This record gives sequence, structure tokens and C-alpha cells, in this order.
Amino acid sequence: MHKPQYRVAAALAALLLPLPALAQPLDPAALRDAALQDTLAWDFIEGITTEVGPRPAGTPAEARGRAWAEAWLKAQGFANVRIEPYMMPVWLRGDERAEVTGPFPQKLTVTALGNSGATGPKGVEAEVVMFASLDALKAAPDAAVKGKIVFITHRMTATQDGSSYGAFGPVRTQGPNVAAKKGAAAIVIRSIGTDYHRTPHTGNTRFEEGVAPIPAGALSVPDAEQLERIVARGKPVTLRLTLTPSTVKQAESGNVIAEVPGSDPAAGIVVVACHLDSWDLGTGAIDDAAGCGIVAAAARRIQQAGTPRRTIRILFAGSEEVGAFGAKAYFEAHKSERHATASESDFGADRIWKVEFNLPENARAVGDRVAAALLPLGIARGPAIGGDGTDIAPLHRAGVAAIDLAQSGSRYFDLHHTADDTLDKIDPAQLRQNVAAWTAMLAVVADAHEDIGPVTPRP
Amino acid sequence: MHKPQYRVAAALAALLLPLPALAQPLDPAALRDAALQDTLAWDFIEGITTEVGPRPAGTPAEARGRAWAEAWLKAQGFANVRIEPYMMPVWLRGDERAEVTGPFPQKLTVTALGNSGATGPKGVEAEVVMFASLDALKAAPDAAVKGKIVFITHRMTATQDGSSYGAFGPVRTQGPNVAAKKGAAAIVIRSIGTDYHRTPHTGNTRFEEGVAPIPAGALSVPDAEQLERIVARGKPVTLRLTLTPSTVKQAESGNVIAEVPGSDPAAGIVVVACHLDSWDLGTGAIDDAAGCGIVAAAARRIQQAGTPRRTIRILFAGSEEVGAFGAKAYFEAHKSERHATASESDFGADRIWKVEFNLPENARAVGDRVAAALLPLGIARGPAIGGDGTDIAPLHRAGVAAIDLAQSGSRYFDLHHTADDTLDKIDPAQLRQNVAAWTAMLAVVADAHEDIGPVTPRP
Repeated sequence: MHKPQYRVAAALAALLLPLPALAQPLDPAALRDAALQDTLAWDFIEGITTEVGPRPAGTPAEARGRAWAEAWLKAQGFANVRIEPYMMPVWLRGDERAEVTGPFPQKLTVTALGNSGATGPKGVEAEVVMFASLDALKAAPDAAVKGKIVFITHRMTATQDGSSYGAFGPVRTQGPNVAAKKGAAAIVIRSIGTDYHRTPHTGNTRFEEGVAPIPAGALSVPDAEQLERIVARGKPVTLRLTLTPSTVKQAESGNVIAEVPGSDPAAGIVVVACHLDSWDLGTGAIDDAAGCGIVAAAARRIQQAGTPRRTIRILFAGSEEVGAFGAKAYFEAHKSERHATASESDFGADRIWKVEFNLPENARAVGDRVAAALLPLGIARGPAIGGDGTDIAPLHRAGVAAIDLAQSGSRYFDLHHTADDTLDKIDPAQLRQNVAAWTAMLAVVADAHEDIGPVTPRP
Repeated sequence: MHKPQYRVAAALAALLLPLPALAQPLDPAALRDAALQDTLAWDFIEGITTEVGPRPAGTPAEARGRAWAEAWLKAQGFANVRIEPYMMPVWLRGDERAEVTGPFPQKLTVTALGNSGATGPKGVEAEVVMFASLDALKAAPDAAVKGKIVFITHRMTATQDGSSYGAFGPVRTQGPNVAAKKGAAAIVIRSIGTDYHRTPHTGNTRFEEGVAPIPAGALSVPDAEQLERIVARGKPVTLRLTLTPSTVKQAESGNVIAEVPGSDPAAGIVVVACHLDSWDLGTGAIDDAAGCGIVAAAARRIQQAGTPRRTIRILFAGSEEVGAFGAKAYFEAHKSERHATASESDFGADRIWKVEFNLPENARAVGDRVAAALLPLGIARGPAIGGDGTDIAPLHRAGVAAIDLAQSGSRYFDLHHTADDTLDKIDPAQLRQNVAAWTAMLAVVADAHEDIGPVTPRP
């Protein structure tokens, strides 16, 4: 696939002729193959996870992450690098402990869910009532739950496309609200995760307006199965749960933006997004330093190859994990600009295996050319309509076209939102495949001669 | 290999004839193959890890473990089931926190080593001085270490025979003492482990008589590599370490003993050992509920098959993890009895792949018959002289013959002494292979017509 002679000729031509007259198109295949040697994505991920570490939204650590990223983007030579601040409410983890007090006293490993209520320093102790699913809890009479500690378990398994997160995620996002409305004293869930390590999975939960948050924690999978076994013995089980989170009404967060300016401002912006914040338990390597490293490394390769037709805008969003405040702030600030496409990398750095599109009819050939450029990387076109990505969801809802590069999720939910989300989980070879795929996609899309206008958002 | 007709005939004969006259030899192959359907070892492991959980030596939890095991052994029908108590000093874990305070502030995951000194509730904060090995620390001048927090890293990798534990273990067992003698304020080591999870590996360390214990912790492997990267940036690194363990001068622990009585008391006892205590972080499934389940299940199969020539004595030792007080107590109480052989299972429950012996010359054929009975399970004879096992080390030192059934250690040090040592790590199929191997070994050894006298202990 390499065409070194062609590339040398193109480079010579670029030196000899004025650029606008040349309009030498970017070569997706050559750029893609060169990107398989990328080191820049790793440089970003290693750097921010080491020198900043965890970056919880709305905290000084997230602010250090923004400053670090801004400096790094400037050092790479991107244009228009800037921080766009906004305000947001903040939830802060406190102490977290769980202990079976009877009939078989032992500690369990627990972590508080984002937006959890607090137990006070002495904790709450109550009888455990176990449910095998969220639906089982919903179906239970209030009297079976009132004053007790609800325990919801489940059987989430790993899926390549991550779809099991959709199926089991509501245990976390909705379970605490359901339990609170039924009068539960507190709730613990089996982590929304697929590993067997004692590193519980945090993540946000949501309480309806008017529902007072109850203490809500996630047990690691081994602990959840232990509690299942203890409950299955048939004796009344009591649990003491101590969670002492606190909240701050408003604190500063922000998005970090950088650009590769295009030659044709009217052609619309190609947005490549990721998020800079992370949960506090790990260093946010797969979630989502990886995504930021990938999209920045790919954009930098386009910038180095020449001026694309369209401006490529890198969006390192803030506070994705806790309510996508960065996504909203970006949309409010930039909705009047023309966006051609929006894509996000927020699913780790394992091998990309699928690409899906939502493109207007007249730009169908753009998708065909992207798909053709990705096929040599083992990436096949999927059947669904594209439009993934929390940080670009407002853009997609407003009709911006979508190109989704889907990473393998087979081990993503082993690590997601745990203390185990650390640099060592990034496989450099798979990371380079990601950069190659994003580079090829950008080489096609940023330079496409077709108009890429609005689309009907996927349902 | 199955001989069901033969077994039925033997069972009928056993009903018809007085036992001593029958002297029907045990059939190792048939017993071995039947044991591949074993459920008793799992029953023990699942039961004690669920209903007792962690069993740290000298604590009420270990005492609950003894009571649980005693009741279980009696329920299986073993003879002479009893607890043999003794006293021991106890070290108790307190709070444990580590935090890089500069130049890149972030928390690290740490656990205190057994016998660690205490920092007090506010912790100690000092500059970090990193060493790539224990030898590098030993070679350092005192002035390079005095008042600092020593950090020893290393590169332990997984080995099937567990030999890397011998090579890297001294970082934990000796490192703190070396650092203390050089005037270090505290020490953290890279966990003596081979996984990449944020579940640090505890384990005992030892301070020489007259050396005041300093605070000593283990970072998880991802945290140790993070600290390496931070130190490698070249700026002074400061760490705040908080460890608040405490000690109790004397508390009760105990061994649990059960027997399958043999027909010939003069032939000596066949000891099968494991340990009942565990570290406090996990539930002690691989270390060492597994070993107790395996040896008990195998002994029970011999008991059900008929009366062996030699008494089989099950030793569930107490307090192995923190100084082998149970082993010493057993030896003191029983050294005047004749022991034919001693074997221990304390390396998880993954597949046994090797058998090694230390048998007297006249009993060489016993080893040959054991090896032949194990070969169909994929177990080959190894070249070394046998004699493994902390709980039976005093017996081996006193010249008792040894038969070592070696489990694969390929993933043992991923889990060893961590919170991740939980039931889900036991593979039932491999566990059954263990029971089959131990059953075959006991069927040969307990019934061997040869005299099994003392041996020269291995060096």
C-alpha cells in the first residue's frame, strides 16, 4: 500500500509550487501507513497520566489537566489553542467502607457512585434485600425495601461493541433513584463491569428532581458475588455502609480547543473530540487520555502533510463523566459555526474494528472512501447509523454528520471507571492502529470535495 | 483407567470379610480417576471463604476459621478432629495511604507490610530515593538514604515453578530492615507480584533484633511504575505515607488436626498440610483455603475406600503467613511421633505439573509408583530433591521424607497476598485435578508395604 515514490514527488511538488494552486490532495493510504509508527498519541497519554494523574471534573486536578493539555497542544504547533471555561456543580468522593456485620462478619470493597448521598461518618447499618435485576427492584412492593439496604446484582458480560453497558448500565444510573423512591436506606449494586478484581466501578447515578439522594455504592464483582453467596445462605444479612461524599455548588471546568486551519472556511469544521476529565480512582488512561492522544496525533499528521480543505478542530472536553457539561458549553459557544462532521474517541485504545456513518446523500462517496481507506487496518463498515459520542451529542442532535470509529470493547469494561484505568492498560500497537485509522479518516474527510451538509440525526 | 467392576467387587468383599483379613490394597488409578469428579474440595473452599472470609492470624476471624474447619472436618467423618491452640504475637493493619505531594500531586495505592512500623495518623512526608534493586540499596551510602523514603522497584515476572518469588522476595523480606539500618524515614516497595492491578501485595517483612521497625508499604505494580515515571522526570519527588498498624503481644491461634486412622501405627504418619490463616486483604481462597480443601478431599477419598496401612493426618496449620507459629507448635507437640512422609499444598489450585521426592533408598519404589500414578494427570517427575512447605519445614528438617506436588505458579503471584485472592480465582476443573493427584499419592504412600524411614534433609 505504501507509495514512497509518489510521496516524495508530492513533497517535491509542494516545495516548488504555491500551495493554493497545488491543491495537492492528502494521500489517505500513505498517511495511514505512516501513522502505524506513531509515537505522539503515547506521548500525550503517558504525559498527562503521569504528570497530572486523575482529573476529576471541576477540581484543581482537572484544571492542571487543562493547563497541561494546552501547553502540549501548543508545543505540537496546533493553531488557536485555548481553554474555554464554564461553571458546573461538583460531587467529591469521601471515605467509603462496607462491612457485612452478620451473619458472617467481613469487609467488602465498595466505591461511591457519583451523586451518591452521604451516610455520615458512622455509616448506616441495615438489613440487605437482594434483587437479581433492576426490574425485580421496580416490581417489589415498597414495604419490602423501606429502611433496608437494597442490593442489585446482575450478570453483565463483555461485548465487543459495548452493548452490554447499555443493557446493564441502568442498574447504576436508575437503580438508586428507584430504591430511594421506595424508601430504601441505601443501595449497593454489583459494579457495572466485567472483571473479577476488587477494584469497584464508579460512575454517575441520577436522582429525579425532588428525590433526596440516598447513599449509593458499587461493590466490586468478587464482592458482589460474595454478598450473593452470603444472602443465599438464607439468614438475615446486615450491612454497614459508610460513604461520606460532599458537593460544591459551582466550580470552574473548561474545554481545551486546538485547530488545524483549513483552506476553505465555508466547507465546515471537522470536529474530533475526546474528554480530558477522568474519574478520580484511576489516572484516566483508557478513559479518556487515550482518545485525546489518538485524535490529536491524527490531526497533527494531517497538519504536517499540508493544509486540508476543512479546518480540523480538536475538542478536549471537560467534565464528560459527570454530566457532559463541557459538551453543552461547547455547543452553546459554537452552534452558530458550520460543522461538517463530528467524531469522538472515548472507548479506550484497543483495535478499531468497525466504522459507521451518518452522512448526507450527496456525500455518500466520502463514506465509501473512508471505508476503503480503513479496510487494510481490519476495519469493516457496520450496518448502523453513526452518531456516537457524549461530547458531540449536541452537535449530532443538531444535524451534524457523524463518522464513528468503533474500538473493541472486549476488555473496556474490565477497567472502566476503576482504579485500574492506568497507563499499563494501553497496548502501544493497538494504539498506533487507532491513530492510523483516525489519520486516514481525517485525510479523506477534511479534504473531501463534496459538500457535507446537515443530516437527519439517528433516532 | 476406570475399573468399575473391580471396585464393586472390592466393595462387596469389604462388606463380607473382616477388614484386617481383607487387607485389600487401595487402587490408586481408580481412586485418582474417581477424584476427577470431586466436589468436596470446592465445598470447603466455598464454605470457609464465604462464611468466615479473611482469617488473619491471631484474630477472632482466624478463631472463627478454626471452629468452622473443625465442624466441617467432623461432619465429613474424620477421626480425632481437634484444635491444638498456642499463643503468638499479632500485627494488625491500620489505615494506609500514600500520596505524591510533589511535583505531580496524586494518590498512590499502598498496603502495609506485616511488621511494618507506624507513621502516626498524620503520616510522614519526605523525599523519595529510588533504587532499582535491593542490592542497589545495600550499596548506597547511608547519607543517600537518611531521612528519606526509600523506594525499591524491581522486575519480577511470572514463573511456572514460582522461582521468581525466591529471586525478588527479599525486596520485601529484607528491604525494610536494610533501609531502617541506613536511617530511612520509611520505605515503599514495588509489590512482590506479577499482575497489573491496583491491589497491592502485602506479606511479612522482618526487622533484626535491635532495629526499630520503620513504616514499610507495598505499592501496587501500576503505582510503582507510575512512581518510577515520576522519579524519572528528574525533579525532587516527595511522598506522604500514612500507615497506622498496631501490635498485640500475645493472642491465641491454633492448628486444626484430623485423621484417617491407619491399620499399622508403627508404619508412621503421612502428614498432609495446608494453612488455615490468610492475609486480611482477600478471603484466602488460593492462599490457602484451596490447599486445605485439596488435602482434606483426598484424605476423605482414602477413608471412604478402606483403611490404609498408615494413618493420614490432616494438618490445617494456623498463622503460617506471619511466622509459621503453627508449624512450630505442631512440631513441638508431635515430634516424638513417627512421621513417614510430610506433604503440603500451599500454592493455589492451578494444575499440578511436577512431583518431587525425598525418600529413603529402600522406599525408592514408592516414589516410582506415585510418579506412575500421576503421569496420566500430566504430572511429570522433576529433578530436584523434595521438601517444600512452610508448615512442615520442621518435620523435613528433622528428617521426615518429602513428597511435593507442585502446582503451576503462572498466575499465583498475580493474586498472592492481595485483595484479589477470592473464590472466583479457583478454577474448579484444575482443582479437581489437584484432588485426583493428592488422592493417587495418598493411595500409594499410605498403603506402601515398604518402610519409609528418615532421610537426609535437602540443603
